[in-house]
Amino acid sequence: MKAAFYEGNESIRIGDCTAVAPAAGQVQIRVSHCGICGTDLHIFHGKMDKRVTMPAVIGHEMSGVIESVGDGVDGWSAGDRVTVRPLDPCGQCPACRAGHSHICQKLKFIGIDTPGAMQGLWTVPAHTLHRLPDSLSMEQGALIEPVAVACHDVRLGGVQPGEFVVVQGGGPIGVLVALVAKNAGARVIVTELSPFRISLAKELGLDAVDPSAVDVAALVEEQTGGAGADVVFEVSGSAKGAELMTQLPRTRGRIVVVAIFGEQPKVDLFRFFWRELRLLGARVYEPEDFEEAIKLADSGKVPFEKLITNICPLDDLESGFRQMESGSGVMKVLVECGV
Amino acid sequence: MKAAFYEGNESIRIGDCTAVAPAAGQVQIRVSHCGICGTDLHIFHGKMDKRVTMPAVIGHEMSGVIESVGDGVDGWSAGDRVTVRPLDPCGQCPACRAGHSHICQKLKFIGIDTPGAMQGLWTVPAHTLHRLPDSLSMEQGALIEPVAVACHDVRLGGVQPGEFVVVQGGGPIGVLVALVAKNAGARVIVTELSPFRISLAKELGLDAVDPSAVDVAALVEEQTGGAGADVVFEVSGSAKGAELMTQLPRTRGRIVVVAIFGEQPKVDLFRFFWRELRLLGARVYEPEDFEEAIKLADSGKVPFEKLITNICPLDDLESGFRQMESGSGVMKVLVECGV
Repeated sequence: MKAAFYEGNESIRIGDCTAVAPAAGQVQIRVSHCGICGTDLHIFHGKMDKRVTMPAVIGHEMSGVIESVGDGVDGWSAGDRVTVRPLDPCGQCPACRAGHSHICQKLKFIGIDTPGAMQGLWTVPAHTLHRLPDSLSMEQGALIEPVAVACHDVRLGGVQPGEFVVVQGGGPIGVLVALVAKNAGARVIVTELSPFRISLAKELGLDAVDPSAVDVAALVEEQTGGAGADVVFEVSGSAKGAELMTQLPRTRGRIVVVAIFGEQPKVDLFRFFWRELRLLGARVYEPEDFEEAIKLADSGKVPFEKLITNICPLDDLESGFRQMESGSGVMKVLVECGV
Repeated sequence: MKAAFYEGNESIRIGDCTAVAPAAGQVQIRVSHCGICGTDLHIFHGKMDKRVTMPAVIGHEMSGVIESVGDGVDGWSAGDRVTVRPLDPCGQCPACRAGHSHICQKLKFIGIDTPGAMQGLWTVPAHTLHRLPDSLSMEQGALIEPVAVACHDVRLGGVQPGEFVVVQGGGPIGVLVALVAKNAGARVIVTELSPFRISLAKELGLDAVDPSAVDVAALVEEQTGGAGADVVFEVSGSAKGAELMTQLPRTRGRIVVVAIFGEQPKVDLFRFFWRELRLLGARVYEPEDFEEAIKLADSGKVPFEKLITNICPLDDLESGFRQMESGSGVMKVLVECGV
């Protein structure tokens, strides 16, 4: 079995997988597929060198089959098809004690702060497991983690049937948020600059516009009878997105900040006052979001798997990163780890 | 009877009050006292010349006694002691139809968009009236409007007993928010630069610190066992306030934007993501906030009237504005209109 090691400076080395026998409370998983997340690309670009321990095995959007279980692990057996919710909270901090362990103040994100899934055999705490139904392929299973992000965002945004939703940013997470919101009964518009992503969003049945070519605020006003959007998901992480997000909502409308902003943008706080807008940040997921994501994928109602534009063997991980860098023609890239 | 007319260019003329007979659905009020709001000072400074119609009678924090009632006004009679909720919504726009008529998309704010209370006899729609109990003085009655702002802010912030609250800005509204939150059972710290205002806040039984001298984030962390504040009210309207507001809350803590930001500050949207913070704008009040303000003032539990530092006759309105400009030694200035 192999593993991919990030060694800094945009360099990936493929070497032998160091199989770790599962300790008490752990399971060892034979990894099938692992998606490349924007965060993984960020790590590849050296932006998180202070956080990762090199050589680093990364990856956290995965599917696989349990190979062996450690002592004291109940309810899981070798052969079970699973995905992993890659969060390891401390259980002690104020956030954990308040019931927000998914955003633990000392959270270890598995695949960033500890070894990840881009290896043949991966050992993780059993509390991170979610069961994959037989009806889901391993490729679909590797999408559950980002779908769970979208489920979390839509749940926290409180999207109701009939509501008007704008999703700013049509990358993988933006499109998943749009699909989940649409499935929840909302009318959805995606704003996205890339013609390829606009086209893919449309293929998935979504309305999508280029905010550099269309007056989105006027469009939303027209489509909502002058009221404004019920919910805006800001997934672009751009200054332009931060500017537009306050122009779209109705009185007491909601803005959900999904994007990871590298810089602090200017924000129209007057508009929050004027329309009594609400904004909330949404980060990762809670267990129920994984369950919802699996249920949604299993229902077959939402074509999540159409986001997969490329599948490459682990040996070609670097070319996967290069494809993502190029932007065009790529949405979600999966890596086959079990080869 | 007299009226004060704002004529532009920091000029106030005292002239005869043009008494307007109440039409159907209106009442005429003999105004007793009227507080000077920060917005009135803003108007005096010429910052809202595009919005007001000169010569403009301004003022909207008032108490008085009904002089006469127009046709079709039920439940109100001459002699009733009242205050006015100075909002005149259109009733037709999407905000009104959604039940948010207090932030109507075509809202007329009485005292800005239409004539205000700084005159001896003032005619307003009867739907704006709230009854003042006999136990409240007319001076206290003139504080009900700003207290209602504070009640609205605290209600929308969802302050619970035992919660830790930071109020950024110790002017009249900030101090009222702090008093209302404390009365709701919260532990409250006010941050304020002015030594006079810090001192007055302390006299009112509030904790108050200078954020230019104290590390407020460290203080809050220490006082909350590392968790952070439950609710932050941003009432300063400053770039520094916008910077500090995201550093203080706990995971899923709330920020209430009360201030009117003249410029768009930089905001740490990453922190919203990281801690799943929530922010909401709060503007004016709803009828229940006026009722709560009257109930609170009537209970005698909260020393609202101690905010009144100056009372001047209508003739001296300009000196009232000048006192407010000077900042030091002044909190709430009332004008006697019924003389």
